[in-house]
Amino acid sequence: MIDPKARLDEVGERALLRYLRERIPGGPGVVIGVGDDTAVIESLGPFGLVTVDALVEGTHFRRDWAPPRLLGRKALSTGLSDIAAMGGTPRHATVSLSLPPETPFAFVEGLYDGLLERAAETSVNLVGGNVSAAGNTVVVDVTVLGQAERLLRRSGAERGDRILVTGTLGASAAGLLLLAQGVRVDEDGALSSTGLWTESSSGPLLRCLQAHLDPRPPIALGRALGETATAHAAIDVSDGLAGDLLHLCEESGLCAWLDAAALPVDPDAAVVARAGGRDATEMALGGGEDYQLLLAIAPSRVAEIRELALVWGVGLTEIGEFEAGEPAVSLRKDDGREPLRVAGYDHFRAGEPPSEAAPR
Amino acid sequence: MIDPKARLDEVGERALLRYLRERIPGGPGVVIGVGDDTAVIESLGPFGLVTVDALVEGTHFRRDWAPPRLLGRKALSTGLSDIAAMGGTPRHATVSLSLPPETPFAFVEGLYDGLLERAAETSVNLVGGNVSAAGNTVVVDVTVLGQAERLLRRSGAERGDRILVTGTLGASAAGLLLLAQGVRVDEDGALSSTGLWTESSSGPLLRCLQAHLDPRPPIALGRALGETATAHAAIDVSDGLAGDLLHLCEESGLCAWLDAAALPVDPDAAVVARAGGRDATEMALGGGEDYQLLLAIAPSRVAEIRELALVWGVGLTEIGEFEAGEPAVSLRKDDGREPLRVAGYDHFRAGEPPSEAAPR
Repeated sequence: MIDPKARLDEVGERALLRYLRERIPGGPGVVIGVGDDTAVIESLGPFGLVTVDALVEGTHFRRDWAPPRLLGRKALSTGLSDIAAMGGTPRHATVSLSLPPETPFAFVEGLYDGLLERAAETSVNLVGGNVSAAGNTVVVDVTVLGQAERLLRRSGAERGDRILVTGTLGASAAGLLLLAQGVRVDEDGALSSTGLWTESSSGPLLRCLQAHLDPRPPIALGRALGETATAHAAIDVSDGLAGDLLHLCEESGLCAWLDAAALPVDPDAAVVARAGGRDATEMALGGGEDYQLLLAIAPSRVAEIRELALVWGVGLTEIGEFEAGEPAVSLRKDDGREPLRVAGYDHFRAGEPPSEAAPR
Repeated sequence: MIDPKARLDEVGERALLRYLRERIPGGPGVVIGVGDDTAVIESLGPFGLVTVDALVEGTHFRRDWAPPRLLGRKALSTGLSDIAAMGGTPRHATVSLSLPPETPFAFVEGLYDGLLERAAETSVNLVGGNVSAAGNTVVVDVTVLGQAERLLRRSGAERGDRILVTGTLGASAAGLLLLAQGVRVDEDGALSSTGLWTESSSGPLLRCLQAHLDPRPPIALGRALGETATAHAAIDVSDGLAGDLLHLCEESGLCAWLDAAALPVDPDAAVVARAGGRDATEMALGGGEDYQLLLAIAPSRVAEIRELALVWGVGLTEIGEFEAGEPAVSLRKDDGREPLRVAGYDHFRAGEPPSEAAPR
């Protein structure tokens, strides 16, 4: 047993690696897990999917805002979302951690609690990893490997395709706002501080924080879309609805409009936005990190995909349409259309403080 | 064209991603490279190999010691070495970069020069990546995917197997010593400063720096070993000969002795060690980051493996033998045997300054 309060420079690299090796189980398709020169997996086919994402302290998260267990869950979920958006099944993941020597062991323990829990929920195997000492910034790099029968690309949207999105939008952005206002959850995802808010609003607060700190991309639906070929194109909503729709437009050579009244603005985000004098629709359009699926569907197959979403218990909303034209996104309201300017978050730009919003 | 002197917060994330996307070519077995939700590769089989390694600033490298091009080459080579030690063929790699906003664009350019050059030399495709803004530490995380017909594990050594090692040992440790003494190479790998040394010693200096900054693991031999099944076990020498041999002992349930007189101490490292009052044999035993292959070979197959090494132009030296006994390594000299204490480098231990030696 390692003392949870011990710093990593007291625990030592060998003891840390031994601990991780003992915790990480094998699984289906894993020939050799942790402990040899490389991990060995059975062949992934017919298509192998590979995606890598990083959670960088000060850019994507703050240690005083995100309990390590939730951080571990999210580090895996961002890659799972990419695999879902490709129509694939996630299978394996590797984790590379950069950790300051003064990090308490409990942080690594909590991070792996979350990683292993999320991996078990989604039938993903952790097959290897790397631990490095780092100056003063925690970096969690996760590579997810998956497989697909058929690919769901960004470039397949066709003129006249309906635009559909899973779940609701804006709750993650609202959660970030709440963190900045001092609202906190504990390791188990329960509210530990309501900041400036009253206890009576705990339901919406909790759900927004969960959306931000522990997103649940619709993995099973993504896989089903790959198997049934019901969608022409897909992308996961990580930068924000408007920005990600623009990516689909650019890759497919089309423009698109969104119906402002149809957007599935998250009701809890709306509560938070209203109280803070913010526009919930703007949060839904540009907030980012929703980890929902944005889909291009032929009109004749909309009914079919609605069935599929019902089967998998995923909300699905029709929000617009692709048209011929230069890549651009416009918003349709009662009084006409307005072009949507897609700013997109830029991590490198000076003057923008590092925040947990930081969609990639 | 982006100004090489521009800082990343002036260049912006989008321009940086566009630049990287344009630079990274496709390749055999790559269905979709950079630019969709995930990269897509053809099935790797029968065994898929996965390894992840990180180069962390201040722990594994210093920006004023390692030109970015060489850093890019090394970031890939460490993973290639793992694949070789598993008897596999490297196929694809993903790169996740964490970069401080004030990093000059030229650093990223140089890093990718090195990554792409090394990838082309070894027929590896860069299939994806991630770029994150980070506080003040550069982290280069590289995942390498490979394939193998047959696996060369750490656990297969048998009693009586001969211990062989490729190339020479100690040059990387000597190179690190030289960097600490102010010897420097430029982007092209030419000596730019000899520090306290005279120009006349430039040959040995250069070769030691190259060994440290631009290691060349015997990839083709590793692959051939996997194909021919001539070796019982293998590991790459990254922690240092003694430590990595102990890993083979532990995994195979054996002990081993090394013949001190037989060790292939690098002649250039010997020059550097002599001048610095250091023991070259100790550098060969414990220096680390040699990225050579350490092999367990049945006595009846030593001749065969020597042939194979000749074909691939790789030096190969017999240095000891595995015996029955508790996992341990001893050094045989004229006057008998002494047990080798394997300290092993621990990145997390307080008091040890971050250095470029830092073998993992």
